[in-house]
Amino acid sequence: MEKTDNMVRNIQIAYIGGGSMGWAWGLMSDLAMEPQLSGSVKLYDIDFEAAKRNETIGKLLQNNAAVKSQWDYKAVETLREALTGADFVIISILPGTFDEMESDVHEPEKYGIYQSVGDTTGPGGIVRALRTIPMYVDIASAIKKWSPEAWVINYTNPMTLCTRTLYEVFPKIKAFGCCHEVFGTQKLIKSALSDMEGIEVAHRRDIKVNVLGLNHFTWLDKASYKGRDLIPLYKSFVDKYYETGYEKTGKGHWMNDFFASANRVKFDLFKRYGLIAAAGDRHLAEFCPPWYLKDPETVKTWMFGLTPVSWRKENLVSRQERSLKLLSGEESFELQQTGEDGILQIKALAGLGDFVTNVNLPNAGQIANLPLGAVVETNAVFSHNSVIPLQAGRLPDNVQSLVYRHVINQETTLKAALNKDKELAFRAFANDPLMTASINDARKLFDKMLENTKAYLPGWDIG
Amino acid sequence: MEKTDNMVRNIQIAYIGGGSMGWAWGLMSDLAMEPQLSGSVKLYDIDFEAAKRNETIGKLLQNNAAVKSQWDYKAVETLREALTGADFVIISILPGTFDEMESDVHEPEKYGIYQSVGDTTGPGGIVRALRTIPMYVDIASAIKKWSPEAWVINYTNPMTLCTRTLYEVFPKIKAFGCCHEVFGTQKLIKSALSDMEGIEVAHRRDIKVNVLGLNHFTWLDKASYKGRDLIPLYKSFVDKYYETGYEKTGKGHWMNDFFASANRVKFDLFKRYGLIAAAGDRHLAEFCPPWYLKDPETVKTWMFGLTPVSWRKENLVSRQERSLKLLSGEESFELQQTGEDGILQIKALAGLGDFVTNVNLPNAGQIANLPLGAVVETNAVFSHNSVIPLQAGRLPDNVQSLVYRHVINQETTLKAALNKDKELAFRAFANDPLMTASINDARKLFDKMLENTKAYLPGWDIG
Amino acid sequence: MEKTDNMVRNIQIAYIGGGSMGWAWGLMSDLAMEPQLSGSVKLYDIDFEAAKRNETIGKLLQNNAAVKSQWDYKAVETLREALTGADFVIISILPGTFDEMESDVHEPEKYGIYQSVGDTTGPGGIVRALRTIPMYVDIASAIKKWSPEAWVINYTNPMTLCTRTLYEVFPKIKAFGCCHEVFGTQKLIKSALSDMEGIEVAHRRDIKVNVLGLNHFTWLDKASYKGRDLIPLYKSFVDKYYETGYEKTGKGHWMNDFFASANRVKFDLFKRYGLIAAAGDRHLAEFCPPWYLKDPETVKTWMFGLTPVSWRKENLVSRQERSLKLLSGEESFELQQTGEDGILQIKALAGLGDFVTNVNLPNAGQIANLPLGAVVETNAVFSHNSVIPLQAGRLPDNVQSLVYRHVINQETTLKAALNKDKELAFRAFANDPLMTASINDARKLFDKMLENTKAYLPGWDIG
Amino acid sequence: MEKTDNMVRNIQIAYIGGGSMGWAWGLMSDLAMEPQLSGSVKLYDIDFEAAKRNETIGKLLQNNAAVKSQWDYKAVETLREALTGADFVIISILPGTFDEMESDVHEPEKYGIYQSVGDTTGPGGIVRALRTIPMYVDIASAIKKWSPEAWVINYTNPMTLCTRTLYEVFPKIKAFGCCHEVFGTQKLIKSALSDMEGIEVAHRRDIKVNVLGLNHFTWLDKASYKGRDLIPLYKSFVDKYYETGYEKTGKGHWMNDFFASANRVKFDLFKRYGLIAAAGDRHLAEFCPPWYLKDPETVKTWMFGLTPVSWRKENLVSRQERSLKLLSGEESFELQQTGEDGILQIKALAGLGDFVTNVNLPNAGQIANLPLGAVVETNAVFSHNSVIPLQAGRLPDNVQSLVYRHVINQETTLKAALNKDKELAFRAFANDPLMTASINDARKLFDKMLENTKAYLPGWDIG
Repeated sequence: MEKTDNMVRNIQIAYIGGGSMGWAWGLMSDLAMEPQLSGSVKLYDIDFEAAKRNETIGKLLQNNAAVKSQWDYKAVETLREALTGADFVIISILPGTFDEMESDVHEPEKYGIYQSVGDTTGPGGIVRALRTIPMYVDIASAIKKWSPEAWVINYTNPMTLCTRTLYEVFPKIKAFGCCHEVFGTQKLIKSALSDMEGIEVAHRRDIKVNVLGLNHFTWLDKASYKGRDLIPLYKSFVDKYYETGYEKTGKGHWMNDFFASANRVKFDLFKRYGLIAAAGDRHLAEFCPPWYLKDPETVKTWMFGLTPVSWRKENLVSRQERSLKLLSGEESFELQQTGEDGILQIKALAGLGDFVTNVNLPNAGQIANLPLGAVVETNAVFSHNSVIPLQAGRLPDNVQSLVYRHVINQETTLKAALNKDKELAFRAFANDPLMTASINDARKLFDKMLENTKAYLPGWDIG
Repeated sequence: MEKTDNMVRNIQIAYIGGGSMGWAWGLMSDLAMEPQLSGSVKLYDIDFEAAKRNETIGKLLQNNAAVKSQWDYKAVETLREALTGADFVIISILPGTFDEMESDVHEPEKYGIYQSVGDTTGPGGIVRALRTIPMYVDIASAIKKWSPEAWVINYTNPMTLCTRTLYEVFPKIKAFGCCHEVFGTQKLIKSALSDMEGIEVAHRRDIKVNVLGLNHFTWLDKASYKGRDLIPLYKSFVDKYYETGYEKTGKGHWMNDFFASANRVKFDLFKRYGLIAAAGDRHLAEFCPPWYLKDPETVKTWMFGLTPVSWRKENLVSRQERSLKLLSGEESFELQQTGEDGILQIKALAGLGDFVTNVNLPNAGQIANLPLGAVVETNAVFSHNSVIPLQAGRLPDNVQSLVYRHVINQETTLKAALNKDKELAFRAFANDPLMTASINDARKLFDKMLENTKAYLPGWDIG
Repeated sequence: MEKTDNMVRNIQIAYIGGGSMGWAWGLMSDLAMEPQLSGSVKLYDIDFEAAKRNETIGKLLQNNAAVKSQWDYKAVETLREALTGADFVIISILPGTFDEMESDVHEPEKYGIYQSVGDTTGPGGIVRALRTIPMYVDIASAIKKWSPEAWVINYTNPMTLCTRTLYEVFPKIKAFGCCHEVFGTQKLIKSALSDMEGIEVAHRRDIKVNVLGLNHFTWLDKASYKGRDLIPLYKSFVDKYYETGYEKTGKGHWMNDFFASANRVKFDLFKRYGLIAAAGDRHLAEFCPPWYLKDPETVKTWMFGLTPVSWRKENLVSRQERSLKLLSGEESFELQQTGEDGILQIKALAGLGDFVTNVNLPNAGQIANLPLGAVVETNAVFSHNSVIPLQAGRLPDNVQSLVYRHVINQETTLKAALNKDKELAFRAFANDPLMTASINDARKLFDKMLENTKAYLPGWDIG
Repeated sequence: MEKTDNMVRNIQIAYIGGGSMGWAWGLMSDLAMEPQLSGSVKLYDIDFEAAKRNETIGKLLQNNAAVKSQWDYKAVETLREALTGADFVIISILPGTFDEMESDVHEPEKYGIYQSVGDTTGPGGIVRALRTIPMYVDIASAIKKWSPEAWVINYTNPMTLCTRTLYEVFPKIKAFGCCHEVFGTQKLIKSALSDMEGIEVAHRRDIKVNVLGLNHFTWLDKASYKGRDLIPLYKSFVDKYYETGYEKTGKGHWMNDFFASANRVKFDLFKRYGLIAAAGDRHLAEFCPPWYLKDPETVKTWMFGLTPVSWRKENLVSRQERSLKLLSGEESFELQQTGEDGILQIKALAGLGDFVTNVNLPNAGQIANLPLGAVVETNAVFSHNSVIPLQAGRLPDNVQSLVYRHVINQETTLKAALNKDKELAFRAFANDPLMTASINDARKLFDKMLENTKAYLPGWDIG
């Protein structure tokens, strides 16, 4: 990495999960459009062929006229190769396949437990975590060995436990977890200002917020625009749209899109707690008792969708087709900013100016009433070779007791995964707020779900 | 109070709620049978006539041949009279009437929320607390003024918030809360030893237990008999009776008795958490998410009863009739030990020997992972003018997260009651794990329940 | 306050202590040179004449050709007048006179206790705090009443307890305490880079530091320049200059200047704890056991000065003379930047761009191992109508135990001052690490010092 | 171990340090006079011959007419032999020889640092701990392997770190540390009652106290006799004897006895903090800043002695001579109760009745404002196979800050010893309140003291 006043050259990036046909392409796009950075990206993936394809796509991309900076892409066969010399490490993997995810999401439905995403919490999120943690143990060990000074950015879910595992294995790691869910809430507040008062805010980043919570179950206790407190405005906005929901992109959108929602869950949580929940409704619903996910009818009344894994499988096929088209030149890569903060973070860390955004980091006190060491989501200042969380204060006690239960479950899940301790894992599984099955049914479900994912649980004592 | 080696004479007891036709008679009986104590009891009740009747009953009782010690009973008209000169203060009142309790218990049923008792937690327990706390503010203020050095024993529910209020108003008060629910669990373990191994234990007190939790949601992480760890035995016992339930007094008893149960809730909680829940099933069920109280059918499968307030009303009539018979001499007072620890506690505090039992006291660290200041239930050593809690350790994290939510709700309820803050009270109400109604329905229910109890909420801003 | 894109006009500033002949002139100078701000300053002082003189000086100043913005100065006779309508409140007062300070600093010398400053900690700092806290109670009450939304900047010592009192009296106050001592340490590190490697850093602000501690006993556990860790360099620097000391401005300067030092105390603390102490040696020495302040000879070996109050008195006379010359026009006001961050903070709060600097604020977790609520010094992000501390981490345990003792003493002093509790005040006084006198001598000294300052302790029970 | 109603037979005791010519004889004496216990004692010592001699002495002792119970003594050559089958393990060893202790105590005097005992804290205590911890690592590992269910009683100093090491290595160990220093303070209060009011208390145990602190730096915030608060009486007693000191056994005793004191340190600490310090003055003085140990003249004014190690060496010779006389029958073993609580504790643990006394155990919350896990001294209830600390409350903040510093130093010392980390050990050494030498001198002293004890620091990197 070589820094001059307004430019950083020769940045070395290791991309773990570099065969991806989503995040990887987004990153390529964002890098290509950033004139102040250049360097090379090593693509590592357990599917080496996929990484190879992305290497080619990355190289082809440089021909695009709109490209503002040059990047070299190279698929590598080992973590060691990827990490050695890296300034930044990006991790974005799919833990297992969509077959395992199908079990995570849909197996619980047989016991009346519905999950809108199934990758973060709930029975699905917990089993996914059990599967993912060993992978992160390996990644953390490799980073400790080959690139202990690199900055590590995690995008994989379950975000909290992935990041937590990195720090558990290598406490001095310079890692953080990134997620765009808060951005969506900033955009919603931006819309509220427009809807209620006709004020048009230039960028969601101009809505200043105080972030505190867990990834996908994060809260805002302050929101302001140009120094003005927006909580009262948000309250009126909630009152206006509580029953009908609010959708920016047209009424009923949520009925046709597995990812959309009408924000009714967020509005309901505001009514309950007086705080702005700052993630998509599909995620928020999964952290609560089954208020919103009791059954598909209930879900409908709350106007959000249950994302079926079958959709993900179909979507994967279409992305694979697109990959081939990009490779063959049949389709050309369209540059498009993702709206993610990743590149801005990299710039700040490389010394190109300070920057505040929300990230996931071990709690060193930034949330005063959550346990130290647990990974929490708050704002942080990014500056030259430094990320420092802002002091976010305290969650109100009633919200804290909801959040805290998940912290406990997550820590229990981590310990269970590290020790391959099935009984301990079940304790977390049974204690999830979505777990409405009887303890005996919970046990059956758990056994079945572990069975379905056992290829990823080496060393576990599973029937 | 005058102490000689084996006897304490002239003890002054103030009984608040002294018109009671249950606890008061029990106390009279226990006092009469205790040869090492004598003195006088001042009976104070907002129903002075009821206190007068008990004065007469108390005096008549002394004629009973089985009486071992002399006590003087006197109804008084003011708290000041009752408290002045008191060595001990006993508080056992009914906060409001059974009409208010009917609202507490049965109003929520209109929204599908069932409560087996309704005096401790859940919507009913919270509203009862709102009604009771102002009464305890008055009592604590009076004690501070008239008998600041007296030992104060509370029997009223909600136990935790009554005791908590006493300390909030008068931090130097020497008060504790007493409850027999743990005794029942000791008896169950005694039965288990008999059932599984034919070992007959002389007294439930010989089953040594470590107590930690909140009143009516208390847990035992250790149980032993003559130094032997009984947790493994209890586990086998649970396995044996998990499906059928276990009733000492004959199968099916729970079907005919609103107070009985077959311990299935306790067994299920053991399966979930590996810890012995130490209260009656009717109480335990109310602290959990609606696992056991989903609807009357579910309650039946868990083999315990929902106690209707109509029963309490009928029972009151029969106790009133008995009171008149006792007064007229038509019926004579039968001496019978209650099995409560009250007299033993008084003896220890008066200097007649040390004694360990469970009580409710502000947490000064005796439960390491619950907030300081919250009222918790653990063992304590009673000795001359001293009650010191035993260090009970930590609740396992998953149990702690269940318990902690109630601590938060209770503290919120206290603050709401002290400040007559309806919104804050609603926060606690809405955050109760039994509250499965929508937030709008919860609001309607809350408004209705407050309306029904508003005679006891002076100064509140209620419609 | 009216904001346009690059300019904020009509700012209302209340200056409490507006008759000052030091800080007030500095502020006038800084304001005059800031082109993006303009408005008016109300000068309030218990010495109204002094405020009047500054009003005149402020008006005269506007004639200076170098002035870049217009400010209106006005002396007012009441706090109410000063505060009403204020956007910002600046507090910089002398609590009592130099006669009281003479007692604070020199009375303890009769018992062999030497203090280099005597305004922050030690017997002098504690007595000064007792005198100052009632003044701050009044100021906080007035702000609560007349300008509850204003930002309040405190410059008075004892900084920690002044700021702490503001929050104690008015918890929603938007106040912070400012101090330049950390800047001096940044400059020292800047010098170290120059001295050891010939690297010239443009501005001390380019030395990025993590600040954690109490005002005047603050520590840096991280220091970097362009992303490079400077702790190893500082270590070599300490090794090089440990014996001789390091003075930027020429060897021996400390011998002729009561405010200078050769940084040997700082170097010694680095050797002891591996952390950079970030205040002047004269302040640091006062927080430690009498390692550096045992007697005047010891002080000399550590190469710093004991500032006699006689010097302050002489200096006051010369400042008074200068004031008259400025008034008469005999001398003209020379514009000169103070190097303080005050104006930059005001700009950020007014919405003219974000800014990170160190401030004193109640601990909300920003220092994980100091008590919540105590006022601590860390970095904070200043932005539009917002100051948010950065999470500073933990003090190493051995440093924490030194610092914590002062936190305890400060909290005890506050409570004593609020309750006018002489015994409690003595507890803090006797527990100060500099207090080497016997407990009986400590009592005599304490009585004498209170006697000397009793005019400022209304309501206390003093002899 | 076989228990009947009033008797426990065949108890197996392992005595580590079984060659001792002090504690071992005391135990033999206490056991011989206890009619409710009998069994056998395995004597293990690194000096096997010494253990053999005690075996013979133990056997001879049984011939004494006053003996009330039979015990079998046997010297064994390995820890494994000693521990296998043990019900109780007693540890009372001398870590190193008096040569190492001579360095601990007297080497610091060359730098003006005086220690009255030198086995608990201060430079001597810290170096002794470094030497002792590896021994306790071995003992704990052996117990984990050979007698994990045994109750372990530690008598060795430094008490806190020995006990702490046992729990660090084997967290499930059933160990506690015993010390008689609190008993001496109970006796002093007993004397105060006699001296001030002519009340003669039968036994020091009748003085009920609340104990909280660290071993040898323990405090009593409550003391009562028959329910009466004795703090006011103690205050008058301190006032009466503050200047002259109080000695039960005759004025001036402390001048002729290296172990005696006139309690002036205890009285002074009461004046400072309003709490009864509950250890001998020689121990208390070492935990404070050099208020009492500044130099030998200061020590004299506080009326206690500095115990020279030469005295210990001479005393050892005379004990060795006595050992030979006992062996040869020239002298016969005189039975005499030690006044220790060890036998009472063993009886309670074996099921012969409950018992409350003070012990050293890891903090599980029994002292609310000291770190969890640190070994603290409080009361505990001993019962059948169970030791449960009583909740002792909080140390007043100013005392807490003194105590806490030692907790930090002890934890640092433990970590240093376990990791053989010389720099970390020096951090603790330099941070001791008695360390008044300059940091460079502290380093020299530390190096010299380590050098003197290096035979006991295998694996350390020492010059």
